[in-house]
Amino acid sequence: MDNTFGHLLRATTFGESHGPAVGVVVDGCPPRLALTEADVQRELDRRRPGQSHIVTQRKEEDRVEILSGVLDGLTLGTPIAMMVRNTDARSKDYGEMATKYRPSHADYTYQAKFGIRAVAGGGRASARETIGRVAAGAVARAILAPLGVELVAWVDEVADIAADVDEDAVKVADVEGHIVRCPDPRAAAAMLERIEAARKDGDSLGGVVRAVARGVPTGLGGPVFDKLDADLAKAMLSLPAVKGFEVGSGFAGTRLTGSSHNDPFYRDPAGRIRTRTNRSGGIQGGISNGEAIELRVAFKPTATIMRPQETVDLDGNETVLEPRGRHDPCVLPRAVPIVEAMLALVLADHWMRQRGQCG
Amino acid sequence: MDNTFGHLLRATTFGESHGPAVGVVVDGCPPRLALTEADVQRELDRRRPGQSHIVTQRKEEDRVEILSGVLDGLTLGTPIAMMVRNTDARSKDYGEMATKYRPSHADYTYQAKFGIRAVAGGGRASARETIGRVAAGAVARAILAPLGVELVAWVDEVADIAADVDEDAVKVADVEGHIVRCPDPRAAAAMLERIEAARKDGDSLGGVVRAVARGVPTGLGGPVFDKLDADLAKAMLSLPAVKGFEVGSGFAGTRLTGSSHNDPFYRDPAGRIRTRTNRSGGIQGGISNGEAIELRVAFKPTATIMRPQETVDLDGNETVLEPRGRHDPCVLPRAVPIVEAMLALVLADHWMRQRGQCG
Amino acid sequence: MDNTFGHLLRATTFGESHGPAVGVVVDGCPPRLALTEADVQRELDRRRPGQSHIVTQRKEEDRVEILSGVLDGLTLGTPIAMMVRNTDARSKDYGEMATKYRPSHADYTYQAKFGIRAVAGGGRASARETIGRVAAGAVARAILAPLGVELVAWVDEVADIAADVDEDAVKVADVEGHIVRCPDPRAAAAMLERIEAARKDGDSLGGVVRAVARGVPTGLGGPVFDKLDADLAKAMLSLPAVKGFEVGSGFAGTRLTGSSHNDPFYRDPAGRIRTRTNRSGGIQGGISNGEAIELRVAFKPTATIMRPQETVDLDGNETVLEPRGRHDPCVLPRAVPIVEAMLALVLADHWMRQRGQCG
Amino acid sequence: MDNTFGHLLRATTFGESHGPAVGVVVDGCPPRLALTEADVQRELDRRRPGQSHIVTQRKEEDRVEILSGVLDGLTLGTPIAMMVRNTDARSKDYGEMATKYRPSHADYTYQAKFGIRAVAGGGRASARETIGRVAAGAVARAILAPLGVELVAWVDEVADIAADVDEDAVKVADVEGHIVRCPDPRAAAAMLERIEAARKDGDSLGGVVRAVARGVPTGLGGPVFDKLDADLAKAMLSLPAVKGFEVGSGFAGTRLTGSSHNDPFYRDPAGRIRTRTNRSGGIQGGISNGEAIELRVAFKPTATIMRPQETVDLDGNETVLEPRGRHDPCVLPRAVPIVEAMLALVLADHWMRQRGQCG
Repeated sequence: MDNTFGHLLRATTFGESHGPAVGVVVDGCPPRLALTEADVQRELDRRRPGQSHIVTQRKEEDRVEILSGVLDGLTLGTPIAMMVRNTDARSKDYGEMATKYRPSHADYTYQAKFGIRAVAGGGRASARETIGRVAAGAVARAILAPLGVELVAWVDEVADIAADVDEDAVKVADVEGHIVRCPDPRAAAAMLERIEAARKDGDSLGGVVRAVARGVPTGLGGPVFDKLDADLAKAMLSLPAVKGFEVGSGFAGTRLTGSSHNDPFYRDPAGRIRTRTNRSGGIQGGISNGEAIELRVAFKPTATIMRPQETVDLDGNETVLEPRGRHDPCVLPRAVPIVEAMLALVLADHWMRQRGQCG
Repeated sequence: MDNTFGHLLRATTFGESHGPAVGVVVDGCPPRLALTEADVQRELDRRRPGQSHIVTQRKEEDRVEILSGVLDGLTLGTPIAMMVRNTDARSKDYGEMATKYRPSHADYTYQAKFGIRAVAGGGRASARETIGRVAAGAVARAILAPLGVELVAWVDEVADIAADVDEDAVKVADVEGHIVRCPDPRAAAAMLERIEAARKDGDSLGGVVRAVARGVPTGLGGPVFDKLDADLAKAMLSLPAVKGFEVGSGFAGTRLTGSSHNDPFYRDPAGRIRTRTNRSGGIQGGISNGEAIELRVAFKPTATIMRPQETVDLDGNETVLEPRGRHDPCVLPRAVPIVEAMLALVLADHWMRQRGQCG
Repeated sequence: MDNTFGHLLRATTFGESHGPAVGVVVDGCPPRLALTEADVQRELDRRRPGQSHIVTQRKEEDRVEILSGVLDGLTLGTPIAMMVRNTDARSKDYGEMATKYRPSHADYTYQAKFGIRAVAGGGRASARETIGRVAAGAVARAILAPLGVELVAWVDEVADIAADVDEDAVKVADVEGHIVRCPDPRAAAAMLERIEAARKDGDSLGGVVRAVARGVPTGLGGPVFDKLDADLAKAMLSLPAVKGFEVGSGFAGTRLTGSSHNDPFYRDPAGRIRTRTNRSGGIQGGISNGEAIELRVAFKPTATIMRPQETVDLDGNETVLEPRGRHDPCVLPRAVPIVEAMLALVLADHWMRQRGQCG
Repeated sequence: MDNTFGHLLRATTFGESHGPAVGVVVDGCPPRLALTEADVQRELDRRRPGQSHIVTQRKEEDRVEILSGVLDGLTLGTPIAMMVRNTDARSKDYGEMATKYRPSHADYTYQAKFGIRAVAGGGRASARETIGRVAAGAVARAILAPLGVELVAWVDEVADIAADVDEDAVKVADVEGHIVRCPDPRAAAAMLERIEAARKDGDSLGGVVRAVARGVPTGLGGPVFDKLDADLAKAMLSLPAVKGFEVGSGFAGTRLTGSSHNDPFYRDPAGRIRTRTNRSGGIQGGISNGEAIELRVAFKPTATIMRPQETVDLDGNETVLEPRGRHDPCVLPRAVPIVEAMLALVLADHWMRQRGQCG
């Protein structure tokens, strides 16, 4: 349900932004896989606040502690609970939020749903919830690594600046080489400039994260409701600020004809069945076909801006929300490891499901 | 799992294209709701083959039988099993498919996953699977109707022809008034012409279905993994031929700044909290905010075309697939009731979940 | 949820006693297993009414039709839907039931839960619901057969008549050799006599079904909530009329001391680790240890009796229910194949789960 | 799955006996319920080691920390994570366990399942796992309290000493008045003596815990697989050392006839429909009927004894296990709050499910 993701590999996240801790319990992990706190920490460091001057300056070390499920660097097959203590919780910054709904945030809807909410830091709706996802993704990576699966995500667009990236060749190192996490240096420079301008302006930007998974075994994905792309779509839309998802040719593909869109099969020199093009994005009929899985995720501009905004208070009176606190002028760079984590979770779960049903 | 959708309202579909029957079991439906076979049949008739000259001419009456869960026009709270017999199964049309993989179909991936497949009619990968979804959607409608929820979906784009539709005003009757199911008469005429041309050409077209849900209660949707838009994304990507999903501002919204994208709150004359714009698409933080839910679904051009295509056979030898059988040159018109059905299933399930947790 | 059992192998049953049909959809079955309608029919014939003079004389052929998921005698990996039409529905026998609650039946509680119920034949609460379970069990048997798992259940007690059975040696053929399904001929004769007397008396009897599963692989069963014995307990208590469950030493074992109850390990001549005794019933810490799984299931005396009974009507007025219709004076003989079916479902599901998580 | 219990109210436990911590995440809890750490601590103190001289002397304060989901004494509707640090972990006591399988423990089966295990303290198979259950039970109690549900469990039998308890009248205070947790003073004294003798003897005892739930609303429980008694059976069999379960008349009821076993309905002075007897144990057709829910749970004698035992080592060689460490000569007194916790979890979950489906 709500706070659990996956079927055989299940991640249950918990925690409010300014509560004692955030974290995750990962259940169903295969036993005897190599996994250490350092493996998890490495991923968390990629999403941490304060890692560069263009992301939120909230000071959190985000130091993970593995509470269970791992012994002497090996998974036990039992639940892996991981926790990060919240430390830099400046609750005073959020005083006004207690009485006024921030536009395009989840304040109003949490109140409408639960009749109560943890105001400070956005509570459960904070992006800190994604710490649990990234930690769980590190477990999923431990499952996928022996299979030879390679995941790369990057910032493909910021506002109207689009990168030019060879999706067959791009490597994680190319992405991590720039604080914007865009592997096209020219675009990265333009994006950086635009983000810095937005910050000065008290405004924010959106964009698109693109991801590929190479070396995915054929046969993963349920053929009906749990199509691999359906579960990927859910995974990505479950991230804060996401408004769209595409696999393979996506929306652009709707303008082609069948004869120009279909991916012809051929036999490669090694005797493997391949497709000449990959408009299917590595998934046909909901099942992986062995080509690279390719997807794109649309992030809206950050809702938190440093400008006065029209809104209403808890009593429904119209008012103005004054800017305060810290913000990410553009969440895209920090979204990259989170998108990878969700991609890893979906693939690892479906790999286990395939093994369970089909051997 | 694979063939079941939903948590409290659960639809489990079954059936191969040329097997004895297709159908669905809907479990968890509230008791004492009005439901008849005619209610289900009405929806099935909207997705039936042969309903107009631009869709597949397979002759199926698609007559539904309710096997359980309903008595004297009222739901019992027990599973509602519904079945449609397959009748016009021209298996001979599919002889070549037994040995050659159709490009961009699920033939190869089913074989890779299961090591076996029902060749005739595409087996389980056939669009006939959606009969069960539409029937289940009729049950979901019976749940939503007393709440005053109104669902409208329509063909918004075919190839590069885009409709101009007022999403706040459009009604189902406007959509059903044209066989293309586009409520913009000018665009509908152009789409029809293009579809007829594609049919003559032995080719196929894709497009975009758009949908709105009005009158949705606030508070629906899990705040984390089961965000309302995440479950909608999964629902839509689980449909055959879908390659993309957007909610609210979608991909276009990524090019706005926060100050131009945020939806300001105000109080309407009736004292209700509303937003002046609806770039959020009726969902904030994964939870419905009472505005209309708005989404767009990208369908690729139909993979079945009436042209020779490069492919490989079961032994991996390269060969040519000759065209044969019947096809939908454009699935969009028939996709409209299916998109509505999935939308209804997600909303009804989350309404029940909200009642279960929050009363 | 309610009408679905299992995690990777999932059986969803449907149907009311006097509705059009009862049946089941089995999802998640591995592909390429041998399965025919005859395999399913064989099991259904063992639970069919009218098979001998000591069970209900309702005349139902219970002819199964496989609607999907099987082609040319092999499973496809897709949902297997199976249906049995209801034919001999003497609804007139149930007139009084519409207005008076039958004691110790589910009439009152269904009404309290749903505010509506299918009166005729007990509706969904009828033992006809178990048809779907037995059919699903035949699928589970197809999974277990290649593993060498052998299931035997039998009537171990009727009222105070207890059989003397060697649980290590008893075979299905021994059980099927007598209409009471008790492999101890002396006890079977006494049970038969007692059942015939109860029938004449218009009364009913309860008893205990015992079951063993031999050749179960080690390692099946979740170690915490989904312990193998916990899932077996749920499976058995989910059957109509069941009031108790024991695994291994059961309630009698509570009177032993640890030193007399523990099962010492030893190495058998083949080098396999075994236990000298089997008070654990083949399950330790929720996980199968390779010894025979042994369980006992308590069935209360049938609630339907041919005697006047004190009760209340729908308006809450006290009244007398006059006997009418047909009844099983003792459900135990027909319960045997149902217990086996549930046992098979639990084992097959956990075998798949183990393969999914641990390979 | 394995480490999660419940559908709408879901408890996921984690932790090994000698790892950093044990705990639970409770998801799906209704918002705005009163809950404090003290409420949880009170229940944990009832199961804590070292609370009297007849239970294990492991020194654990078992101090709970609520990490999320609660603010200012009210539930938020978000996941409630609770953690207890392990402190007194004498791993040296377990040296021999690393190489020899303890009879009737889970050592061998964990190794068979996972190919790895946390040896110290039994790892995940330790009774410390039940800390998470008891903490989750405290959340379930917060849900049930406003409904007026009253839960009482007690030690009903130790070995062959049976208590004489009026199940309609017994109160928690009666149970808590004696360290054995048996409300019959004469039986309690005899049980205490027997337990002290077993301890001296290096042996252990089993017994039966009985529980009642009064004031349970009618209509709870799924009518088919998720019968209320089926879920209770699973809940109880998922506890360590449990070998049997009975609801209402249980195994003894199998010896009655239908005419003597059925519970006649009548109308009580307040106009409520009641049953004159309660052999159904408050559940008919899997659904609560408003009478007290009554169940019995069989616990085998503790597997850990202070005597040499025949066993095999990791290499399969026969050997002798020498006694070492600490043990509970009889787990029954500490099992009482655990049985109550599981009972609370099942009832709260089903109450929410009933509200979700039927309003």
